[in-house]
Parts: sequence; structure tokens; C-alpha cells
Amino acid sequence: MVWHLTQTGVNKDSLLENESLYALGNGYIGVRGNFEEGYKQGMTSVRGTYINAFHDVTGIEYGEKLHAFPETQQKLLNVIDAQTVEIYINGERFSVFDGTVLNYEQNLYFDKGYSERIIEWESPQGAKVKLHFRRVVSFVTRELFAINVKIEPLSKVNTIKVWSELNGDVSNFTDPNDPRVASGHAKRLTVEEVDGSHQQAVIVNKTLASNLSAACVSESTCTPGYEYKCEITSGRVQDHYTWETNEAVEFTKKNVFTDTLRHGEDLKQQAFKVQNEIGDKLFETLLQEQEDYLNNFWNHADVQVEGDDKLQEGIRFNLFHLLQSVGKDSVSNIAAKGLSGEGYEGHYFWDTEIYMFPVFLMTNPELAKKLLLHRYSVLEAAKERAKEVGHAKGALFSWRTITGSECSAFFPAGTAQYHISADIAYSYIQYYLVTGDNSFMKEYGAEVLAETARLWLDTGHFHKDQFRIDDVTGPDEYTCIVNNNYFTNAMAKHNLKWAAKVINQNTDKMRELNVTENEVKEWEEAAEMMYLPYDEELGINAQDDTFLQKKVWDLKNTPADKYPLLLNYHPLTLYRYQVCKQADTVLSHFLLEDEQDIDTIRRSYDYYEKVTTHDSSLSYCVYSIMAAKLGYDDKAYNYFMETARLDLDNTHGNTKDGLHMANMGGTWLSIVFGFGGVRIKEDGLFFSPSLPSQLNGINFNMTYQDRLIKVILQPEQVEYRLLEGEPLTIHHFNESVKLESKLRFEL
Amino acid sequence: MVWHLTQTGVNKDSLLENESLYALGNGYIGVRGNFEEGYKQGMTSVRGTYINAFHDVTGIEYGEKLHAFPETQQKLLNVIDAQTVEIYINGERFSVFDGTVLNYEQNLYFDKGYSERIIEWESPQGAKVKLHFRRVVSFVTRELFAINVKIEPLSKVNTIKVWSELNGDVSNFTDPNDPRVASGHAKRLTVEEVDGSHQQAVIVNKTLASNLSAACVSESTCTPGYEYKCEITSGRVQDHYTWETNEAVEFTKKNVFTDTLRHGEDLKQQAFKVQNEIGDKLFETLLQEQEDYLNNFWNHADVQVEGDDKLQEGIRFNLFHLLQSVGKDSVSNIAAKGLSGEGYEGHYFWDTEIYMFPVFLMTNPELAKKLLLHRYSVLEAAKERAKEVGHAKGALFSWRTITGSECSAFFPAGTAQYHISADIAYSYIQYYLVTGDNSFMKEYGAEVLAETARLWLDTGHFHKDQFRIDDVTGPDEYTCIVNNNYFTNAMAKHNLKWAAKVINQNTDKMRELNVTENEVKEWEEAAEMMYLPYDEELGINAQDDTFLQKKVWDLKNTPADKYPLLLNYHPLTLYRYQVCKQADTVLSHFLLEDEQDIDTIRRSYDYYEKVTTHDSSLSYCVYSIMAAKLGYDDKAYNYFMETARLDLDNTHGNTKDGLHMANMGGTWLSIVFGFGGVRIKEDGLFFSPSLPSQLNGINFNMTYQDRLIKVILQPEQVEYRLLEGEPLTIHHFNESVKLESKLRFEL
Repeated sequence: MVWHLTQTGVNKDSLLENESLYALGNGYIGVRGNFEEGYKQGMTSVRGTYINAFHDVTGIEYGEKLHAFPETQQKLLNVIDAQTVEIYINGERFSVFDGTVLNYEQNLYFDKGYSERIIEWESPQGAKVKLHFRRVVSFVTRELFAINVKIEPLSKVNTIKVWSELNGDVSNFTDPNDPRVASGHAKRLTVEEVDGSHQQAVIVNKTLASNLSAACVSESTCTPGYEYKCEITSGRVQDHYTWETNEAVEFTKKNVFTDTLRHGEDLKQQAFKVQNEIGDKLFETLLQEQEDYLNNFWNHADVQVEGDDKLQEGIRFNLFHLLQSVGKDSVSNIAAKGLSGEGYEGHYFWDTEIYMFPVFLMTNPELAKKLLLHRYSVLEAAKERAKEVGHAKGALFSWRTITGSECSAFFPAGTAQYHISADIAYSYIQYYLVTGDNSFMKEYGAEVLAETARLWLDTGHFHKDQFRIDDVTGPDEYTCIVNNNYFTNAMAKHNLKWAAKVINQNTDKMRELNVTENEVKEWEEAAEMMYLPYDEELGINAQDDTFLQKKVWDLKNTPADKYPLLLNYHPLTLYRYQVCKQADTVLSHFLLEDEQDIDTIRRSYDYYEKVTTHDSSLSYCVYSIMAAKLGYDDKAYNYFMETARLDLDNTHGNTKDGLHMANMGGTWLSIVFGFGGVRIKEDGLFFSPSLPSQLNGINFNMTYQDRLIKVILQPEQVEYRLLEGEPLTIHHFNESVKLESKLRFEL
Repeated sequence: MVWHLTQTGVNKDSLLENESLYALGNGYIGVRGNFEEGYKQGMTSVRGTYINAFHDVTGIEYGEKLHAFPETQQKLLNVIDAQTVEIYINGERFSVFDGTVLNYEQNLYFDKGYSERIIEWESPQGAKVKLHFRRVVSFVTRELFAINVKIEPLSKVNTIKVWSELNGDVSNFTDPNDPRVASGHAKRLTVEEVDGSHQQAVIVNKTLASNLSAACVSESTCTPGYEYKCEITSGRVQDHYTWETNEAVEFTKKNVFTDTLRHGEDLKQQAFKVQNEIGDKLFETLLQEQEDYLNNFWNHADVQVEGDDKLQEGIRFNLFHLLQSVGKDSVSNIAAKGLSGEGYEGHYFWDTEIYMFPVFLMTNPELAKKLLLHRYSVLEAAKERAKEVGHAKGALFSWRTITGSECSAFFPAGTAQYHISADIAYSYIQYYLVTGDNSFMKEYGAEVLAETARLWLDTGHFHKDQFRIDDVTGPDEYTCIVNNNYFTNAMAKHNLKWAAKVINQNTDKMRELNVTENEVKEWEEAAEMMYLPYDEELGINAQDDTFLQKKVWDLKNTPADKYPLLLNYHPLTLYRYQVCKQADTVLSHFLLEDEQDIDTIRRSYDYYEKVTTHDSSLSYCVYSIMAAKLGYDDKAYNYFMETARLDLDNTHGNTKDGLHMANMGGTWLSIVFGFGGVRIKEDGLFFSPSLPSQLNGINFNMTYQDRLIKVILQPEQVEYRLLEGEPLTIHHFNESVKLESKLRFEL
């Protein structure tokens, strides 16, 4: 069974990608897989440590700025760098780019939760050593990022020196070849405090504009018998450890990060406190705690595929990185690139609700709840944004944001994606259906549902027995600012229906939220009368009012180098054609399958598949899920395979900027909702499994209303096992059956 | 009869507006009506001299930049300042803000073409003088801007000093309170050369990026008996003239401007040459030449209204400024603010073709031809732009530009206004109909028509027996990126029809333009099958496919301070409603009235009037014209009155940024096309006059196919007089009559 990512040898061409792939994180801290010792002068590295949601505010420039265009955006900051550990053997500085690398192996362990590099190296002068770097970002102590290095002489060695740095003089990544990146938004932190002595370094940084601070207290321990020196220079604390020895030495560096978002103004003292709590725990102890945590995670979340190790690697890799990225403190969420890179500025998108939240919802509902709480924390900002844009009431969630305020500088594919408000509502409803948590729905969900329902009422309007929603953008960013986007309308309908239902069930909330009976009635009417475009001739749901009247893009005769289309055509040109960046109507047929009969869903899939480029990494998994539902097994498998190793194989060419988190969620969705055919509905838990012929078997675990269920899918049968919890009724295709401990069905 | 604008007394609150109102220009140079002596320290002045089309190139910033968004824009530059003439009486510096202004009068003469200020002033120390400033920007010698000052002691005076400056150290206007204005694009000229002696000053400036230069050679003459000193300091030449006298003195400054766009690299020598040609012409001689030129202009262009002097003033004021703004050299066009201010960066828009070109077409076709030639000169840029955006062929004219390349930084209300290409085609067709100039049509028009027709074929598509055009924006900027905008489709139809017709009539052009017979056939088919939205229920043309399904904006209950809406609502909110910034469908019913029957036109007018805010200054005149056509005489008058004095009364509050040139054209259009009911069609010249009851009479002149025709409209009759040229058949309402010398009809 494949539980690790392994690479042997140093490939200079994939260093940046590897920094993303080998990134470690725990949802609070994220550290890219940079080399402790750095690269050579002139080589590019995105050397990064991030604290989820820790950001500065920068201005947005517009050639022409219209009303309510956001004036500022947030930017996830690269914070204090604790990664650096240089090693000198007999005075020669270790680098894999000098001397001779005799052996090189880099591992990332999904089950143990740490990474390592094992290197046998011969220095230019001929000294041989074995170096073993290990690093862990703790799931148990969220503030902790620890590094352990073992240096073992393989030939006669006189001196070993470790040079360890804590660096507060940090910037975000800039590309000197790309002036847009280097435009002055890179350096956003100033060093407020720097101190070091006795193998302890302290740095406090402060942002330029957002008034946030981050601290790092780093403490090191090592094999005795060394000479120690500490230097403090412009924002950096540098520790020198020198052993006159031919024996192996070991060095451990425990870095504790705190920030004002979680630890208040007292963040430095809080960091000391965490260090005290960690005390003299051995690095091995940290690893053991980590493994225990992960054992529990995998017990609930593991997915096994039989017969394809590369695929298995991809699936576990993706799940592991999802766990590393998810904010677990309700102060933060899941950034589009997790904490693995600076792409998309650390912003949160609808990716969370539609592509990643479900993974946690069904493997670790407590984490899912934290994500909902984070969205709840920005509800006021969403209400503010609605007003700003011109709504009389309601909550308009921002398309991309950290703090809740809109950061999108291009509204046709940003703010116009009103569906994000319904997507967030959808996630509250799904949480309720999976957990049955009435009190959470009442305390938090009711308000989110009511405020989003209000938005729809103020956005759409009744016209000739229909409720219509004009001038929004659906998920497909190649078709912007349209009327009655099917996806948006269907999601808004769901939103409105549930808002009415939840408020009706919790009438005491009405006064608290100032919801009138008339409002609830309007929500019900709007849901009832919601216009869902349907083309009689084609028998499909039209993506919007006019999509099907447009010219069809000639994908077959579009040269390969013109993809992704958005990098080669003006948006107006794209808007003018039937061409989709990603699943749109097809996605809503997955999320709300009971809105349409299966024939409409099938015809729609067949139609939209032909005009979809999948230029977005959020598309394949949806097509895989729906292909599985429709019995298009080969397609289901092929689309799934595009998701599973997207970053591992760098198929989109930009893994260096960070991992594609939504796609990683999509891999899991393809398995559970696709091959497993799982659906969560008001009337229960549904399965309609189908194993693609290319796979020998799939097993996965999932939680549902306090149960832990294992699904074992084989070529000709499926088995449902109730691992934990009370018996329950499940639906296997059209059959309702009681799952007491185990059920098996022929397929 | 009112031939001048006059103001008495200095109103500190309207200085900036007055700078625009009293601006002088000749289509090449424009000089704002700044005070020669300047204001006091700390007072704001937009001190500006502009050369039409003389620009620099600056970057456009985007928060999110998509493919084919323009990376640079052009910016009309404030060039060398020759306005400054300071006056010292007994060493006391003259300023209307010091001492006592005993009398103050400022005049702008529409018939004589110059401006003046006559001031009786008592200095703080009690010296009294009469100052008479006159300035002229010559229509005869386009490079010449001359100033004449007479200083006449009214009390005992010992010394009179004139301090005259030529200043090359100039910037565009910045507002220290608005960081967007001061963002570093203000100072775009460097001084390349500065020289001065013998009452002659020379400065050559060069742009930072566009590689253009401008020169000014200034020569001064004055009453003898003075002491002279010349100082040259950092980009400035300063002449000091001192008279020990109690007699009147006179000072004349002739400033000649040249630039590389017109005068080549040798621009300084060219300026000397022009100075030589002017020689020692007296200022009075310059004024006489100017008056002669204007006599001829008014002979063809004057419009007289009886019974309302304020209105008469507005009409002549507007016509005079149009003449001052129009580029007469085919290197330039008419900027949205003419040469009277820096608003809209000196860019050319569709304003030219639809609102201003017709004025020249029907009063001075040679000037109209120059405008067409300018557009022809950027045809290659338009073809380039079409490719860039993603078209296989055709010409896409830029929404706003100086050199032809797109300068719009907000494409939904910029590049998306594809109609500009049809508007330009329309102006070529109108020119052909008014002048009958076949050879011009063949040499220039055919190519413009063919390339724009190609654009429409590549933009639209055939769908179910219709030719449809998706994802464009019509004139109404409160409704963007729509399918089948009626205006656009109707204009494109006209464009396509005429392209086919002209190419068919000039088959020898086909090979030259690589036009195939099949292409021409497609143009004909597309024109034939052009989809023009019509709502059966309302009996009106729908503004686009979905406009009429949207919610109607509640204009009645929108507070007054929420206008203009674009400054108070996010564009998406505006797009979502039936609310128009300006005439759209109604405008196309004016331009192409034979596309629809009169009832449809009437119902459309009635409908759209209710949802139009006229937040654009391009709207009133269209509503006036169509009201006149429909017999809504009061409306016709009221809308007309909104146009006639828009700048004089600063009703839009931003006259300080420059005059609203399109609206000024609109005043004339309202009279000639509105009250006169003039239409130019393939089958001739049509009149359907109607005088609003508020006016006692209107007379106007117009040219048509080598004739000069006078229309005298009285309450109960109209008279057509053929002033010049051969008899012709005209159409009075439905009657075809031959106009030999004079025709009179009862109304």
C-alpha cells in the first residue's frame, strides 16, 4: 500500500514544483518544501512559510474604476523564515549543487505526517557524509514547525558546523522577469522585535497596513560538545554550532509561530507558553503524536483503490494535502492553493464549499463545522458588501477573500458569481443533513440561509409567473454576466426553499433576524416559481437564457497552443461562443439531481461535454461524477484520472505556485460521489455505486449521522459495513435497506 | 442678435468653468481661458494648452488583467505654456484678487473669433489702470496663438512692467486631493531645448514614451521706449519689459506651435518659418483674418432662433466651440472635450460620428471629409485590434483612442461597444449621400465598409434563419454585454448592406481588398437576415434579447442624490434593471428610421423614455429629435433646452474638465434633424419641420450636394431657399417638390 511520495535524485528542473508537492502544513502554518540549506545563488526558489489568513492589505489599481469596485485586497504573507539550517563539513558548505550527490531520497509520509531528505554527499574536497533532514508541522500543536537534522560522517571529518537562522526580513515572491509581480506589494512586513541567545531566537513582525503581527520563537537542541555563537543582524538571528568531531551529530529546531488573529496582542508570550508546553519533547515524540493523529484521520478518511499504485499515491497525496490545508480554528478557511504557495494570494473561493468542504463533512464533520463557522464570521462583511453593491438587504459573499471583503478586481468573473452565496448556503444544508445538528442550524445556519435568501429576493424578480435572476455569472467563466444561469437559479431555489423551511421550523429566530412572515412567503414563492431554463428542442437545461443561441466554438480546429483559451482570447470573444471553461449546468445536476429527470441530465451532459475545455481544474471531477451516474464508465474513469495526479504530474504546468486544492477535493468527490454514487438528501443516504472496469476495487470510509460506514466496491458487488454507530436505513439504488452491520449487493 | 458670451465681475467660484467656456482653439491648438497673469497662490487652475492628438503613452494598471486588455493608453498632453503675461504697475503686481477691481468684463466673440478681458483696476497702493487683454487662436494660421495687452494708466503711474514667459516645464493637471490623478502620469514632457533673446523665445519639448516633440517659438512686439531683459531658467524663458511712463503701452505676443505629427522632425525650423510668414502683421490684422474666416463659417452654419437670446447664445456658443475643436488636418479628430480641457484624456469616441460629424457634414463637408480621413488613417490599427481580440478578420475600431489603439480600460462599456465600427461606416455612407462623392467612397469608403462588414460576419452568426450578434454593448452603458442589441444589429445591417452595395458598384476594388464574391453574398445575407428584436406584446423594439424581461428601476423613488446612477451603484446592479443611461433603441430609430413603422417607433419612444435617466450628455438631443418627429412638441423643446446651455449653465457640474462637445453637436442636431426634420437618405433630402410653440422662429443653413439651402421655420409656415447651386428635388413630408429658388409651405 502506498503511503508516501518518494523522489530519488535531485532534478533541477522540478525544484519549484517539489517545493509545492513536499509542502507541510496543518491548516494554521504552512511551509513549502524548501531545502534547509537553500539553493545556489541565482536559482529561483519560492521560499515560503505562511500562516492561514495572516495577510496584509494592498491597493487595487484600475484603469477605470467604477462604483463599488473593491479598492483594496488582502494578500497572504510569507512570514518569518525558520527553515534555514546550513551545514559545513570541514568548512565546506553543503549543497546538492556542489560536490557529488552519492544518494538522494526525498519522502513525504502521508501516514506519519512528516517529510525527510536522506542524502549521501561527497564534498568537493572529498569528505563524505550522510545527512538526514526531517521536518514536521504538527497537527497536535498547531503553532509548531520542527526540523531535525542528523549528520553522520562517512569518511574522516574534522569539524561539523550547523548554521541555523531565523529570518524576519522576508518578502513575498517576486519574479524579476514579471514586473507585475514585483510591483511593490512583495515586502509587507517589518521587523518589530528581534532577539536571540542561548539557542533561542525571537522575531516579531508587523504588517504595513493590516495592523497584524506574527511572532516566531525558535528553540534548538543538539548533540553536546559544540561551540556556540549567536549573531543578530538586521531582522535575523543566526546560531552557529561547531563540533570538532568525527562522530554523528543531531540538531533539532522547534519553531513556534503565533499571530494576533489567534493569539492576541500578547503573541510573543503566547509563543513562549507553547514552547514551554512542548518542553523537551524529543523529535521522535513529536512524530509519534503526529502519527497518532493521522491514524485517526485515515481511519475515517482513507480511500483504497486496488490495482493502481500511482493512482493510490495520488489519492492519498491529495487527501493528505487537504488535511494540511484546512483551517481548523474558524479564523481561517482553505485557500485555493492551501498553504503550499502564493497563487491566488491565499484567498478563499467557492472551491471550499463545493469541492473541499464535502470531504471533511463526510470524514471529519468537526472540521467541516469550523469552515462553516469561518463563513459565519464574515456574514456581516457579506451584508456590508450587498449594501455597497446596491442591494436593499441580504448578504453577498465575496468571490475571493480572506477577511470577508471582496478582493476580486475583475467583477464579470468575480463579484458577478453570485452563486457563491447559494453555495455557502448549500454547505450549511449539507452539514445539517449529514450531522442532523439542529442546534447548529438554528444558531448559525438559519441566519446565513435567511440573509442569502434575502439577497436572492433583492437580486431576482417575479416576471410573468417566473422568478428570474438577471446579470450574474455562473461557474463557467467563459460565459459571464448572463440572465438566468441554470446553476445559479437552481442553487438559489434550493437556498430559498431551505431558508423558508428552517425559519418556519425555528420561528423564534424570526424576530431575532427581523424576518417577516411576508418575507418567508416570498422566499417560498420565489423558490416555487424559480425559472430553470430548459430547451424544448434539445431537451436540455440551457446554461442561461441565451447560451444555446450562440455560436458553437470550434474546439476541434483550435490549435493546442491556444489552450487555455483565456490566455489567448479576449473575454468578449469567449463570451460570444458556446464554450465552457468548466462544468456549470452539469455541476448543478450533480449538486441538485432531483431538479431534473435523468434523461434531461443525460442529454445535458452529452451536450455540454462537447463544448467544455476543462481549462479550469474544477471541471474534471464533476464530469467524472456525472459520467459515473450516467453509466459512462470509461469517461468516469478518464476524467477521474485527470484529477488524481494533476499536481503530482504537474499537468496544468503551474504546480509551482501551489497545489490545486479544489481539484484534490475533486478526486475524493469522484470516488465517493462518483464511483460510490453517494448522495446526501433530505430523505436519507443514497448509494448507486459502479466500479470502472479499469479498477479492481475501491474501499472508502465515510461518516453519516454519527455512524462510520465502510464501502467496499468490487467489480461485481458492493458491501456496506457499519463500523461505528447505530443501524440505519440506507438507499442502494432504488432500494431502501437497513444497514445493521453489513450488507452486500450484486452489481 | 447674440454673438458673444459676456461676463462681468470676477466670480471666484466659477474660475475653472470659465477656463473651459472661454477656451480658444482652432482644431490644432487649444488654449484654456486662463488668466494671463495667473491666480493667487493656492488657487486651483487647469492651466492648459493642447495640440490635438499630441499625446504620450502611459501604462494601464489592472488588478486582474485578461487577454487583449490594452496595456497602454494615450494621453493628450498639456504643452508649452505661452499664456503668461504678468503686469506690474509701479512695481505692484496686477491681480484681480488684490487691490480693487473697478470694472471687469470678459467676452468671447463667436463672430470675430477672439476673447478679451477689459479690467479697470486700482492697485493696493492706489494706482489705477485699464487693462485690455485680447487673445486669438487663428483659424487662418493654425500654429498661431496670439495675445495682445493694452495697459492704460487712469491715474498717475511711474513704471509699467510686463513680464512675459514661455514655459516648457509643464505637466498635466493633478488634483492633490485625488491620488488617482496625481499617480505619476502628469509630467510627461521633458525640455529638449530652450533659448531666448531679442524678444524671441524658443522651447522644444519631448514626450517620455511616444517619441513626439512639440515646439513653440514666441515673438513679442510692443510700444517702444522700454528696457528689456531676458532670463532663461530651467525650461522657461522670461522677458522683462519696463517702461518709465505714464502713457498707455501695448504688448503683443505671437506664439507659434509646431509638432512632429504635422511638422516632422524639423519642427523648430517650421515654427520659425511660420513666424516669418506672419511677419509683422498687426494684431488687428490677425483679428480681421479671423473674422473673415468666421464670416464664411457662419454663412453656412448659422442657426437663428427668434425670441430667446439665452438660447441663441447657447446655440452659437456651441457651434463656435465645435469649430474650435474639430481637427482639420486628418491627423486628428474631435476629442470628447475638444481642446478645452483634459477630461477623457483627449480621446476620440463615437461622439464624433454620431453627434459632431453631421454638423460639419452639412455645413462644411470638407471638414467632415478630414474626419473620415482621420478614421481611415487608423483602419490598420482597427484591423490589428480585431485580430488581437480574436477575430479572424475585419476591423474593430477602438472605443476610445487617439492613435487608433484601444485606450479603454473597462471593456464592458468600452471595447464591447462594437457599434462604433458601424457608426464609422454610417458616417462614410452619410458623407456619400450628402456629397455624392463617388470617388471618395471608392478610394476610402469601400475599404472601411468592407473591413467593418467583415467584422460583423466574424462577430455574429447565422442561427435559425437569423443573423445574430452576441455579447456586445450598445450605446446605453447601464446595460452591458448583451445579445442582439437592437441598435448594434440595425447599424450592422446598414453597414453590411452598404458594404455589399459599394463593393458591387466598384468590383475593381474587390481584388485590391481581397474580397470574394462569397463574402459579399454573406454580407447581403447577413443584412437580409439580421435579427432585430421586437416585442410582440409591447409592440416595441427590445433593446436586446432580454432587456424587457428585467426588473424596471424605480426612478421615481430614487433620491436625487443618487444620480448619476453610475456614481452610486455597482455596474452589475445597474445591468440587472431596465434603466438606461442614454438613448439606445431610440437613437437607432433616429439614425435608421425606415427600419420600423412609425407606431413601433412611437411606442418604443414612450417606453424607453420612462426608463432613461439621461445620465449621459449624449441623450437629450436624441430624445429631442425623436420627440419632434413624433409631434411631442413640448418634449422636443424641453429636451432641446437641456442641450443648448449644458456647459454655459454647468448643468452636469463638470464643465471645468472641458466642454461636452457631443452635446454641443446635439444642439445643432436637435434643431436641424429635430425641428427641421431633416433626413438624408438614399432617395434624397427630406424635411418634416415643426416649430415648438415656445419659439417664434428658427432659421438655419445647410449644404447638400453642392447646394446651400436656407430653411426658415415660422410658427405656421416653412420656407426653403436655395441660396447656392442648381435646383433640386426635395421632400417636404410626403411631398416631392423641386426647389428652384424658394418654396413655402403652410404648417
